Amino acid sequence: MERVKGFRDFYPDDMAVREKIFGECERWSRIFGFRKIDFPSVEYREIYKIKSGEELAQQSFSFNDKNGREIALLPEATPTVVRMLTARKDLPRPLKWYSIAKFWRYEEPQAGRFREFYQLNADIFGPDSAESDAEVIMLAMKILDSVGLETRYQIRINSREIMQGMLENLGCTNTGRALHIIDGMHKQELDRFRNEILELLPLGDDSRTFLGLLETPIEIEQVESIIGSSGKLFNGLEERIGRLIQTVKLCKKSSRSSIGIDFSVVRGLAYYTGVVFEAFDVDGEYRAILGGGRYDRLASSFTGDAIPAVGFGMGDAVIELVMKKYGEWSPGRSSTAFYLCRSADITIEETVDLVSKLRDNGMECIYDLSSRSLASQLKDASKNNCSFAIILGLNERKTGTLSVKNLTTGVQESVSISNSIDYLRNLRNAV
Amino acid sequence: MERVKGFRDFYPDDMAVREKIFGECERWSRIFGFRKIDFPSVEYREIYKIKSGEELAQQSFSFNDKNGREIALLPEATPTVVRMLTARKDLPRPLKWYSIAKFWRYEEPQAGRFREFYQLNADIFGPDSAESDAEVIMLAMKILDSVGLETRYQIRINSREIMQGMLENLGCTNTGRALHIIDGMHKQELDRFRNEILELLPLGDDSRTFLGLLETPIEIEQVESIIGSSGKLFNGLEERIGRLIQTVKLCKKSSRSSIGIDFSVVRGLAYYTGVVFEAFDVDGEYRAILGGGRYDRLASSFTGDAIPAVGFGMGDAVIELVMKKYGEWSPGRSSTAFYLCRSADITIEETVDLVSKLRDNGMECIYDLSSRSLASQLKDASKNNCSFAIILGLNERKTGTLSVKNLTTGVQESVSISNSIDYLRNLRNAV
Repeated sequence: MERVKGFRDFYPDDMAVREKIFGECERWSRIFGFRKIDFPSVEYREIYKIKSGEELAQQSFSFNDKNGREIALLPEATPTVVRMLTARKDLPRPLKWYSIAKFWRYEEPQAGRFREFYQLNADIFGPDSAESDAEVIMLAMKILDSVGLETRYQIRINSREIMQGMLENLGCTNTGRALHIIDGMHKQELDRFRNEILELLPLGDDSRTFLGLLETPIEIEQVESIIGSSGKLFNGLEERIGRLIQTVKLCKKSSRSSIGIDFSVVRGLAYYTGVVFEAFDVDGEYRAILGGGRYDRLASSFTGDAIPAVGFGMGDAVIELVMKKYGEWSPGRSSTAFYLCRSADITIEETVDLVSKLRDNGMECIYDLSSRSLASQLKDASKNNCSFAIILGLNERKTGTLSVKNLTTGVQESVSISNSIDYLRNLRNAV
Repeated sequence: MERVKGFRDFYPDDMAVREKIFGECERWSRIFGFRKIDFPSVEYREIYKIKSGEELAQQSFSFNDKNGREIALLPEATPTVVRMLTARKDLPRPLKWYSIAKFWRYEEPQAGRFREFYQLNADIFGPDSAESDAEVIMLAMKILDSVGLETRYQIRINSREIMQGMLENLGCTNTGRALHIIDGMHKQELDRFRNEILELLPLGDDSRTFLGLLETPIEIEQVESIIGSSGKLFNGLEERIGRLIQTVKLCKKSSRSSIGIDFSVVRGLAYYTGVVFEAFDVDGEYRAILGGGRYDRLASSFTGDAIPAVGFGMGDAVIELVMKKYGEWSPGRSSTAFYLCRSADITIEETVDLVSKLRDNGMECIYDLSSRSLASQLKDASKNNCSFAIILGLNERKTGTLSVKNLTTGVQESVSISNSIDYLRNLRNAV
C-alpha cells in the first residue's frame, strides 16, 4: 500500500508548523474583521476556462461525473469565491471573506510545490480604494510577521494599470503578450528576456528606461525622481502612481518589514486589473511565499455586474521552507502535559475518575491503557514527552494526596487532592 | 456558473455551527492526549477493495491518473490512517491520533448526507483493553456533551465477538451474512427482517430469544438476568461480556449521557473485530451521529503485522441536524467587536495608525475602506453587527481621547487614548 505520488502524509511532528501557520492566519483574519467561508472541493471545469487561463485548467485534476460532465478538483479559490459572491447579491458589501482550503494541481512535484496543498485566501469585495488594497496586504504582512519572518521577507508591489499605461505610452501594440513575457522574466536568462520583450517595443531611450525599471525594484521615496527621469513613460499615470504610493505608505504603518515597488511583478493569472503583489524571502531563494491583487472584472465575467475585488492567496509549502530556513521554527514534539500513573493497588475505575476530573478541568492528561507496571508507566510518560507525571498509589490514597513529578527536573512534590486542580493548572501554565 | 450537485457552499453565517463542532473536537482530542495528523485526499482505489467492502469502493469518486492508475477521493479515513501507521513501524505505541478532513461519497444527497463532508477521526493503536475501548467512546461523549447535546443522545454499544459467539452458539453457519442482515435491520420492515434472519437460524427458543435481544436495547444492570434467561446463547462469552460491561462502566464515569447495550448495532464496515458503537439522538430521528469500533486485523491485511486498533468517526452533517433540533444552536451572526469611525477631518493615515495599534493588541477592528461620511460609517458598523463604534474626530484629537459608543445600548463614553487599550479590552471581554 503506497501513497499517491506528489502527495504528503503529515505525522503529528509534521503538523505543528502548519498548525502554527494557519493558526496565525485564523487569528489575524479575525482581528482584521474577515469572516470565514468554505466551499466544495470540486467545480465544473468550465469555470476555470473563463478567466484563470488555459494553463490552470490544464493542471487541474479532473474527471467526468456519472452524467459525463467534467468536474475538476479546485486548483485555486478565486473563481469559486466569486461564484459564491455573485450567487448572493443580497449580502451587504463591503464583504471581507477568508478561507483555508485544500487545492490540487497536476504539476511535477519540486521544492515548495506539491500536487496537493492548503491555501489561505482573503478577499475584500466592494470598495475600490488604496485602503482596501492596503488592508489585504497588511493582513498578509501581519501573518508573515507573526510566524517569525518579520524583516525576513519583502513585499513587491506593482499595478497592472500602470504597466498597461507605460506599455501604451511606449506604443506597444500587444500589451497582453508583453505582460506575459514580463511574468516569465525571472524564470529565464536575462538576455533572452530582453530580446523577447524588445521585439514588442520600439527602439529608443524610453524602451531602455522601461527595461531598466523592470530590472530594479525601487523604494517609494525614489519614485518622484524616477518619474522625472523617465521621459514620457509615466505620462497620464500620476493618479495611479499616487494610489500605489498611498497603498505602500499605509502598509508601512502596520509592519516594519520591507515593501517596495517592483515593475517586474505582474502575476500570471489573467484576471488581475489593478494592484498586484507578491512576498519573497529577502534572499529571493524561493518562489513567492504569497501573491495577490485586484480583480475588478472577474465577477462581471460571471454575471454582468462588476464588483470591485482585491485579495491574496498563500499556500503552506513555500512559507514552511522559509520558516525553516530562518530557523524560526523549532520542530519540537508536541506533547500532553500530564501522565497519570497508578500503582497496581489502584483500580482502573478510580484512575478514570481522577483522569475525568482533570480533563473536565481542561487539563491535558493521558494514562496507561494496558495495565502496565508503575515503572513502565513512568517510562511511557517520558517517551510521550509529558511534562509531569501524577502518581496515585496506596500511600497517596491513604493521605488524600497526589505525588507530582516534574519529568524535566526530576523534582517530586505532594499536593492534597482537594487543591490539585489549581496546583496542576499553575504547573502547566508555567511550562 | 453553478455549484456541483450534492455539494455545499458555506457563507459566514453557515460556518459558525461547524466551527463550534470541530472546535470542540480539537479541544477534547488534545485534552485526551490525541495528536493531530493529516493525509492526502486521494488514494489508489485498490486500498478500499481490501477491507472497506465493495459498497464503499463503488461510492467513491474516482478517476485515472496520467499513467492510467485508478485514484479515488477518500470515502473514509481508516484505510489511510492504517496505511500511515504501517509505514512507520518506528513510532512507539500506544499511538493516539486524530484528524479532521474532508471525504467524498457518490450517494444520493438527503437529510444529513451530502456528497462531501468533514469528519473527525480518532484512533488508538496498540493496547487491546476495555480502557482503550472506553477512551475513544469517552472522547466521543465529551464532544457531544460540549456542543450542548448532554443527555440528548445515547451511545449504543455492542461487540462483534459476542455477536459471532451467539450466532455460533445458535448453530448459524453463515455468520457474515447474518451480521450483514442485522446491520440492515432498521432500514426495513421488522417482519421482513425477522424472516430474513430466521432463514439462517435453527427453529427454536434460542433463536427467538436472540431475535428478542436484537429488538431491545438493554442497560448494563439488566445484563446478568438476561444472560440467566437466555439458555445457551451466551455460553463461553462470559469474559467478553465482562469486558463490554467494564467498558460501559468506565464511560459512565466521564459523562451523564446514556450508554447501553444494543445487539442490533454491528456496523456495516467489514473490518470491525471487537467493540462497535454508535450515537443516536434520543428520539432516534436521524441516522447515527457517529460510529466506531475495534478493528484489530486491518493493519495485518496491509502488512502481515497485527496492530490492535480502536477508533471512531463523526461527520458534520447529522450532528448539525441534531444540534439544530434541540435548539442548542443559535445561528446568530458572528461579528467583529470594534468599528473605527472617523470624521472627514481625520486623515486615512491617522486612522490606519490607530487601527493598527488596536489590532496589534489583539482587538478585532474594522474601519471604512471607502471614505464615506461619519453617519454612513455608523450605519455600516450596525449592519456589520459590531458591538462598539470607536469615533475619532477633531474634538477627540484635540483632547487626546476616543469616543466609544455601545451599539446595543446607545451609550457613548469618552476615554483617553493612552488608556484606551485596557478600556476596550474590558469592554470586549464583557460582551
